[in-house]
Amino acid sequence: MQKKIEKLESIIGYRFKNKQLITEALTHPSCDNGISYERLEFLGDIILDAVVGIYLFKEHSSVNESFLTDLKAAYVNSKYLHKVGEDIKLHKFINYKNYEVPHLDNFIEAIIGAIYLDGGWKKAEEFIKRFILNKKVEPIQNYKNTLFSIAKKQFKTEPVYQIISEKGPPHKRIYTVKVKLPGKRFVGKGTAGNKKDAEMAAAEELLKKMGFK
Amino acid sequence: MQKKIEKLESIIGYRFKNKQLITEALTHPSCDNGISYERLEFLGDIILDAVVGIYLFKEHSSVNESFLTDLKAAYVNSKYLHKVGEDIKLHKFINYKNYEVPHLDNFIEAIIGAIYLDGGWKKAEEFIKRFILNKKVEPIQNYKNTLFSIAKKQFKTEPVYQIISEKGPPHKRIYTVKVKLPGKRFVGKGTAGNKKDAEMAAAEELLKKMGFK
Repeated sequence: MQKKIEKLESIIGYRFKNKQLITEALTHPSCDNGISYERLEFLGDIILDAVVGIYLFKEHSSVNESFLTDLKAAYVNSKYLHKVGEDIKLHKFINYKNYEVPHLDNFIEAIIGAIYLDGGWKKAEEFIKRFILNKKVEPIQNYKNTLFSIAKKQFKTEPVYQIISEKGPPHKRIYTVKVKLPGKRFVGKGTAGNKKDAEMAAAEELLKKMGFK
Repeated sequence: MQKKIEKLESIIGYRFKNKQLITEALTHPSCDNGISYERLEFLGDIILDAVVGIYLFKEHSSVNESFLTDLKAAYVNSKYLHKVGEDIKLHKFINYKNYEVPHLDNFIEAIIGAIYLDGGWKKAEEFIKRFILNKKVEPIQNYKNTLFSIAKKQFKTEPVYQIISEKGPPHKRIYTVKVKLPGKRFVGKGTAGNKKDAEMAAAEELLKKMGFK
């Protein structure tokens, strides 16, 4: 355990004064030893959002807030953060007793929370700049949000999503969703392994059909 | 304008070095003079979330992350922040050219962003502690999230929401939504003036019926 933590510390470039914190950040509740990364994840998620948001705000002085929102989303989404975890082989350092490896994004956030509590804002910021803000990314547009605001502002209504099919075994479900604006003729459809992504794809298609994209 | 800003400064207990910032925070795009509160709102929203989240994390050392999430939601939601704006009569200080008074919560966030840029983290924190964290509130449970995680963890599925009726004129629509878990018999229903609140009420009812609440 001691060795493992030292190895991780040298990878992330931060040495913990309080080893309890990093142990907590790396422990999945399945270990059932009374500690869990989850509170630190709550904290780290907030610190990450703030560091990334403030950084982008200052870097991009002439873009509007919706571009900033989409660009932030590209850095703080779970897929991107999971990849950050993979790059530092984080799964080797996590304590868990499940069959499946837990999502690494949650542990990246928990580590940020632990660094913040142990070393303060500046140290958490250094970690985030080195491992998360170090790549150029494309903004992720949240099509559901875009569709929602267009529907509200221009048509005084809200998009209606409906699952039209659900296939496959419970753990490998495929969802197909359709979306429309009440009283309008266009329909967007999307398919994905979870409802949110299927809705996002459906919203994107509807926006295209309506000429907003 | 100068007078108005001085009055607001004395109410919020912060004097701006750069008056441009507070003017921007108070200007709705309907004024069409090339400035808008929206970028500052993006920044303020993030600072607010971080200050409230860190504060609650430190204040409540023995509660779990879902309680922290719900308690944070009670302080950073638009209804609560709008009320904070009403209490300081913020509508008197906003520049806008719409017929309706803009939502005050956005301007509260923009003011936080402006204070942060002008005076730094500590000053923004002081404002938040004095005007937002000064009241005791009850946690707001996000029933949609709760239902989603129970569905995922215990039943390996996702809740399916469906609008079953939409009544009233476009600007005063009433939505009724039902929700169920695929393959389960219970159904939750909810009615509200927007889809999200109707879904939240439906999720709450379903949780009750399934014995989780």
